[in-house]
Amino acid sequence: MIKIGIIGATGYAGGELVRILSGHKESEIKWYGSRSYIDQKYADVYRNMFQIVDAVCMDDNMEELASQVDVIFTATPQGLCASLVNEEILSKTKIIDLSADFRLKDVKVYEEWYKIGHKAPQFIDEAVYGLCEINREDVRKARLVANPGCYTTCSILTAYPLAKEGLIDMSTLIIDAKSGTSGAGRGAKVQNLFCEVNENMKAYGVATHRHTPEIEEQLGYAAGEKVVLNFTPHLVPMNRGILATEYAKLTKDVSWEEVKAVYDKYYGDEKFVRVLNQDICPETKWVEGSNYVDIGFKIDSRTGRIIMMGAIDNLVKGAAGQAVQNMNLMFGIKESEGLELVPMFP
Amino acid sequence: MIKIGIIGATGYAGGELVRILSGHKESEIKWYGSRSYIDQKYADVYRNMFQIVDAVCMDDNMEELASQVDVIFTATPQGLCASLVNEEILSKTKIIDLSADFRLKDVKVYEEWYKIGHKAPQFIDEAVYGLCEINREDVRKARLVANPGCYTTCSILTAYPLAKEGLIDMSTLIIDAKSGTSGAGRGAKVQNLFCEVNENMKAYGVATHRHTPEIEEQLGYAAGEKVVLNFTPHLVPMNRGILATEYAKLTKDVSWEEVKAVYDKYYGDEKFVRVLNQDICPETKWVEGSNYVDIGFKIDSRTGRIIMMGAIDNLVKGAAGQAVQNMNLMFGIKESEGLELVPMFP
Amino acid sequence: MIKIGIIGATGYAGGELVRILSGHKESEIKWYGSRSYIDQKYADVYRNMFQIVDAVCMDDNMEELASQVDVIFTATPQGLCASLVNEEILSKTKIIDLSADFRLKDVKVYEEWYKIGHKAPQFIDEAVYGLCEINREDVRKARLVANPGCYTTCSILTAYPLAKEGLIDMSTLIIDAKSGTSGAGRGAKVQNLFCEVNENMKAYGVATHRHTPEIEEQLGYAAGEKVVLNFTPHLVPMNRGILATEYAKLTKDVSWEEVKAVYDKYYGDEKFVRVLNQDICPETKWVEGSNYVDIGFKIDSRTGRIIMMGAIDNLVKGAAGQAVQNMNLMFGIKESEGLELVPMFP
Amino acid sequence: MIKIGIIGATGYAGGELVRILSGHKESEIKWYGSRSYIDQKYADVYRNMFQIVDAVCMDDNMEELASQVDVIFTATPQGLCASLVNEEILSKTKIIDLSADFRLKDVKVYEEWYKIGHKAPQFIDEAVYGLCEINREDVRKARLVANPGCYTTCSILTAYPLAKEGLIDMSTLIIDAKSGTSGAGRGAKVQNLFCEVNENMKAYGVATHRHTPEIEEQLGYAAGEKVVLNFTPHLVPMNRGILATEYAKLTKDVSWEEVKAVYDKYYGDEKFVRVLNQDICPETKWVEGSNYVDIGFKIDSRTGRIIMMGAIDNLVKGAAGQAVQNMNLMFGIKESEGLELVPMFP
Repeated sequence: MIKIGIIGATGYAGGELVRILSGHKESEIKWYGSRSYIDQKYADVYRNMFQIVDAVCMDDNMEELASQVDVIFTATPQGLCASLVNEEILSKTKIIDLSADFRLKDVKVYEEWYKIGHKAPQFIDEAVYGLCEINREDVRKARLVANPGCYTTCSILTAYPLAKEGLIDMSTLIIDAKSGTSGAGRGAKVQNLFCEVNENMKAYGVATHRHTPEIEEQLGYAAGEKVVLNFTPHLVPMNRGILATEYAKLTKDVSWEEVKAVYDKYYGDEKFVRVLNQDICPETKWVEGSNYVDIGFKIDSRTGRIIMMGAIDNLVKGAAGQAVQNMNLMFGIKESEGLELVPMFP
Repeated sequence: MIKIGIIGATGYAGGELVRILSGHKESEIKWYGSRSYIDQKYADVYRNMFQIVDAVCMDDNMEELASQVDVIFTATPQGLCASLVNEEILSKTKIIDLSADFRLKDVKVYEEWYKIGHKAPQFIDEAVYGLCEINREDVRKARLVANPGCYTTCSILTAYPLAKEGLIDMSTLIIDAKSGTSGAGRGAKVQNLFCEVNENMKAYGVATHRHTPEIEEQLGYAAGEKVVLNFTPHLVPMNRGILATEYAKLTKDVSWEEVKAVYDKYYGDEKFVRVLNQDICPETKWVEGSNYVDIGFKIDSRTGRIIMMGAIDNLVKGAAGQAVQNMNLMFGIKESEGLELVPMFP
Repeated sequence: MIKIGIIGATGYAGGELVRILSGHKESEIKWYGSRSYIDQKYADVYRNMFQIVDAVCMDDNMEELASQVDVIFTATPQGLCASLVNEEILSKTKIIDLSADFRLKDVKVYEEWYKIGHKAPQFIDEAVYGLCEINREDVRKARLVANPGCYTTCSILTAYPLAKEGLIDMSTLIIDAKSGTSGAGRGAKVQNLFCEVNENMKAYGVATHRHTPEIEEQLGYAAGEKVVLNFTPHLVPMNRGILATEYAKLTKDVSWEEVKAVYDKYYGDEKFVRVLNQDICPETKWVEGSNYVDIGFKIDSRTGRIIMMGAIDNLVKGAAGQAVQNMNLMFGIKESEGLELVPMFP
Repeated sequence: MIKIGIIGATGYAGGELVRILSGHKESEIKWYGSRSYIDQKYADVYRNMFQIVDAVCMDDNMEELASQVDVIFTATPQGLCASLVNEEILSKTKIIDLSADFRLKDVKVYEEWYKIGHKAPQFIDEAVYGLCEINREDVRKARLVANPGCYTTCSILTAYPLAKEGLIDMSTLIIDAKSGTSGAGRGAKVQNLFCEVNENMKAYGVATHRHTPEIEEQLGYAAGEKVVLNFTPHLVPMNRGILATEYAKLTKDVSWEEVKAVYDKYYGDEKFVRVLNQDICPETKWVEGSNYVDIGFKIDSRTGRIIMMGAIDNLVKGAAGQAVQNMNLMFGIKESEGLELVPMFP
């Protein structure tokens, strides 16, 4: 049994880790860390877990934790993981960081977009970007995994095969993404109140959202060139789900079937990526609660562009599910263990 | 492996059966019946099932089906199951009927509230009312189970221990219930359009809803007297969930702890009933996607009434989950097989 | 032109006052009081008002305000109005208090349910309970109006004629109310976040909600007897609207038409009360954005009870709309001025 | 008083016409046409109108109607208006067509995108495209106005000044639009049921949506060149509102202030267009129920693109409100009569 510690177990991503891991047969959670709720029963914070989880919330003492568990998930605000991690800890335990601290390879880019100094730049090179479908082999060997952001996972996977194969002109790539509100976290802010979000739709962080450089870096690796793109997130009145609509000029004349073949080349054996049939657009509802990425696309011969669409559950494939998928890889167990979650409809 | 046939697999309850059974380790679905979608791929109707279910929809030929499967679920409109069932079929297979055809023991009451004639009254006596927590032993031996209605399951289980123990005056019982919209089914009706339901709340079927006699009959058995009560359903702008708020005069002066002890007497060992701590009110979100019934209550000494509250997911404990629980009992396997569904939050 | 000051202009009720008054032809707002946003442009807080309201938020100096305006609306937390009001202020200006400070005639009941001391008990007797349809003549002469609560307005008006005429047994009256989330205000609380409210339904404040004694007092005046009842509020995933479902034993055998005649006796000439036709249940959506109260009812001969249902927009008839209606009465202008708001559908 | 007839008064756009016109002081509705509800009381179809509208639904006899009213609104499916209109009718009355029949100047484009033949091509030249802010003078003189589509109004007005001034490269223009569900109409379709739309987000009509050529034609006039662009509509779980996010390469280096000046040049005097302050993104909620278009934009120097965002209420500025604005122009009354609707929040 893999012994697990979670730091930040009472945020939405942390809560989803607990939900998913409760069905994982080769692990058990030993530490429910939550500074805000220390000494309170976890099930008093997330009542869905009443009579399922009996534990009490603990502090976020990573030193102590490292000696007790095989892997630590940090589902915490930017900067915290970097401020706690050190060589001794990494020598004892593995870390899967759900924050952005180790996602970007260029520390200057991190500091510029996140507006904070980086406390552990010495681990940036070692950290593996945990997008399993792309970096699977590196993840297997990692001590420290940077779990990708929610928008990022969806945005990258949707365009990756075409970027890799040079089918799209990367300078024309535009990503218009729409997210459910759980992506904004459980902090008490007026802008996330029910009455402010319900019956409303807006863009935010236009041209400045922090997931932008992460998408650019990863798609840049795929394309083999520096990528600069537009990424615009939007807030949607729903709890879960991200839909990314992506536009790019095709570099050559291709049919739907040819593009499909490219997607299949990369994802044909991927359990969690479903490339949809022709003329089917992904819907966030069809992946809700699951680790799937659904991808569809349409070629517009009038404009020479392809419109790619990807949908995920932001808390699963966009956070906790992917983190568990990474853990499974790191510990050499079945990659889908605990993740055979059937999407819930309606 | 239990071989399963579903008639009505493309309604919301049928879809939920498929979702739940996809995680059930001792059964497999052999027949996805759906008159509306014959010959279409099931996953084209419910795209969440893409690459999970590969089957094609079949007709609702119960004769044929009976010779192929061990149990048939009928998730169909009132009257259909009764019109198809016969002794030969029941001699070959078991039936779990999710419609109301065999829930009421008095055929006249059925015909009065449902406004249709009953086509198979000869099986009414034999049919077992499949509220597992109450009729567990009878369910084990049944050939034909009448799976309770969604409002009914929630309403009965919330009041049952107090009715049974004579703690409430049954003539004062009032049930005010609130349901998500999936309870209205997948039929294309103007009144269930998004724009008609969203940002709206209403009562309907006041004093005439068909679940009323079912609640009265079952609580009557518990109380040992004829029960006539008010049941008022309401439509809530959410997909899933039923909340029943129930009011009754207490027959004697009791403390919260004493009432809790009564609930524990009946439900202390029940995996799927969670009696909440003092001052905690159930919320539908905390049971979403799961087979739980959450129950809370408050004694109002000013009025001498107790307010009981119950919450379920109408498609799980209120339909498909309970049907699977019944199946597990009928086939002697672990009662919770396939049902260890952790509620999804948020 | 009536000169108006608002203390608490940036809460949801305050915002609705501003919206409604922007269409009121015989008044103008001179003071947008908001401690939280002093010196900020009002339209930066409520962007719907961009290019409509040009004013800047002021403090809540009631002394100063009293010398500048003809009427002050206090849309503030409990206790604030009582702590600011004094004889000098009331000699200069009229006050319409949207909080509970002057709603209850018995100061002990106030202090017991609200858990705070009352700072201005000397004005309780003078204050007029501003339920226009019931206390119209008193309102006309008032200096200080206690604007009724949202649940209260809906609950009282729905039962009032039958209470007054002795048609219902008041000891059996149960009010099960459902409210949109704007009733919870604009404070940043986890429990009111979108993800906590959406796809969820719960009761709260069971047997302890502060609107209970207000309903009891007013219906007690109507019935001519002390009334003790059950009132249970519920939170619904919608922005606006209250639906009250009320149950009581009828004191005699009456037909739908006879009860309708009783409602018509009291409300036949009331512009803002619409008594619906037989078998029509009120829906909150049909009154959204308007000052209407829609009332329907059903007699259940099986149980001898009547089920009364009322629907309002909690921010309009339940708060700001009624406050303006009171102002119109106090200043002798057309009662419906500014309130001819057509409900918005969908 | 302008005498008005509405054909299609019971669809959502028709209902909104009735709501808006009920506050219009210089007109009255004489004819509520609705084939589906002939002889039923209008207020039985839209209960918000109970005790406000007393009329009964009529058929869609345009000949008869033309002799009774000064203007006919057709809020009907594509093709109906074209099949009914003729010279005699137009000699007697004015027509404002809310369908697409007369929006496109090229009948071939119409027939290609709408897949139906055009029944009255002889009136296409005469018809004025009723985007008031752009074609105001032509509208004043029109007999037949083609009221723009909802997506179209929002998409065009958001980009128009920059297209007109040559500030954006039209070949790079991409419009990603998000709409509330009322845009899908009141027809009973499974895909628009509450449970299918709620907690869901999807694109549809990708590269094939019928509003595309309308946007291209109008922006083509503005830019003085043929425009071919990508337009992708999305369905959002809300009732009302369209948000268009538009991307284009800037043709030269400009500051936010310079672009703002361009918007102000075109919209500075427009009552219904609000160009927002720097760093403010439009939200559909802030225009709900009103005739406003809110526009914001951001320059991304990294990519050389401008991101323009526009928000409207699809049923008001996107349909009925704009239709009334057109009527006001055609009859020489105040352009904003009946349209001084303050957005409702929350």
